[in-house]
Amino acid sequence: MDAAGRIETALELALATARDGCPPRLGAALRDAVIPGGARLRPRLTLAVAFACADDQPAAADAAAAAIELLHCASLVHDDMPCFDDATLRRGRPSIHAAYGENVALLTGDALIVLAFSELARRVADPVRLRRLIGIVADAVGAPNGIVAGQAQECEPSIGLSDYHRRKTGSLISGATMAGAAAAGFEPEPWRALGMAIGEAYQVADDIRDLVCEPAELGKPVGRDAALGRPSATREFGMVGAMDRLRVLVARAVDVVPVCPGDAMLKAMILRETRKFLPAELAAEAA
Amino acid sequence: MDAAGRIETALELALATARDGCPPRLGAALRDAVIPGGARLRPRLTLAVAFACADDQPAAADAAAAAIELLHCASLVHDDMPCFDDATLRRGRPSIHAAYGENVALLTGDALIVLAFSELARRVADPVRLRRLIGIVADAVGAPNGIVAGQAQECEPSIGLSDYHRRKTGSLISGATMAGAAAAGFEPEPWRALGMAIGEAYQVADDIRDLVCEPAELGKPVGRDAALGRPSATREFGMVGAMDRLRVLVARAVDVVPVCPGDAMLKAMILRETRKFLPAELAAEAA
Repeated sequence: MDAAGRIETALELALATARDGCPPRLGAALRDAVIPGGARLRPRLTLAVAFACADDQPAAADAAAAAIELLHCASLVHDDMPCFDDATLRRGRPSIHAAYGENVALLTGDALIVLAFSELARRVADPVRLRRLIGIVADAVGAPNGIVAGQAQECEPSIGLSDYHRRKTGSLISGATMAGAAAAGFEPEPWRALGMAIGEAYQVADDIRDLVCEPAELGKPVGRDAALGRPSATREFGMVGAMDRLRVLVARAVDVVPVCPGDAMLKAMILRETRKFLPAELAAEAA
Repeated sequence: MDAAGRIETALELALATARDGCPPRLGAALRDAVIPGGARLRPRLTLAVAFACADDQPAAADAAAAAIELLHCASLVHDDMPCFDDATLRRGRPSIHAAYGENVALLTGDALIVLAFSELARRVADPVRLRRLIGIVADAVGAPNGIVAGQAQECEPSIGLSDYHRRKTGSLISGATMAGAAAAGFEPEPWRALGMAIGEAYQVADDIRDLVCEPAELGKPVGRDAALGRPSATREFGMVGAMDRLRVLVARAVDVVPVCPGDAMLKAMILRETRKFLPAELAAEAA
């Protein structure tokens, strides 16, 4: 099975466990929060790194990829809620709180976080890899350095741009690369820098898209960063400066890939994936 | 160190990990959500069961107790939010969203859930016990059978009382007893019935308190179950019927304690603890 197939299968497997006998509205919301997905960037990175590291225990890599994506989906559900972005659209469809109410949305995020950890415990057979994976995903999501802490910076009087991006986006993307290595039995720490570079590139691209795209293309409201007074690379560096920064970050990502059996293939994949961060006409300009 | 001291130390240790370098408002809210605590019923049960099972790895029992309490605190923070109970008081002080806003409260609950799992991975040395403990706490909190699913039943058109109580209260209390056994290297499953009986007794006592206590005594608003149209033992069975039911459940709890090195001591502890579920004058009546 190809990577995309493995990811969807692993997510369906996880959801089936959580939804069997679940109160119906929560069960439906859990599925809608995860399927159909977006680009699945993070789990594809997890599997790509696991492949590059020889992927000797595919079940562990699949569980790691699913856990990372479940946590990403949880953060989207909670971030869309009225107390943060108040976004009624996500991936071109009603966001979870818009469709099911704030109460169900709150619980959906909570249940997805728990499910990420229980999937790891259920499916990662090797105890050393299991312990590492739990540590990696917890660091990527929780306090003091994960997504939750990044989101919490929005609740402070002032925010530093790079610190905010590091936590809000870089933490889970570096969690994705590190989890891929850990699932394949490799030391995860050398894989952090790759995720951080891709994460920062993704965030800069997101700021660019937020400024130039139509809502239909984006699947969510545009111009929200400015409306919410959030830090943004386009506001800090201007459009040209942001495009420059994106080029630098992609080059850095390729540069920091650790030596491993499949590093050449992985570098090619990174160039391919990061090109998709921008709409086609802008991607050509950034190359 | 006595049980109460071990629990507070384990919670302080967990909080220190999460708060070191954390955005200040989230860091403060994390602490306020956990310390000072309430009765600490769940972690005290975890340690009591671990003692009764010889407590050969106290660090594992302490981590299990802390994880259970962190998850309980997370559920209180999220349940108090406006989309559920809209409770501005908790343990006689402002609830987390009342003090820090809904956005910080949402993140506080999320971060506490993640912290529970990362504490287990960090401190439970034995891999078999670690895997079991993660499974136990995830089942107790997540979908389809944990607290989150119980809370989700409030979002459905109709709710069955016993099913609701089983998930909303019984699940984490049986998680507490099972975690105590697993932390001490015992099979956890035989310890589920004990937690379920204590959980149901606790819920019935809570319904009685909700009807008869003053807000100051309860540390939170009274009469909310009726106001929110929630299932309640006093409304279903009447006051006398609810008191009868409480007596039956406490007797059942003592009755289902599995044979283990410290079972006599544990039974005495259960009688002592369940007596505290009601105010003194009612407890005398229920005995």
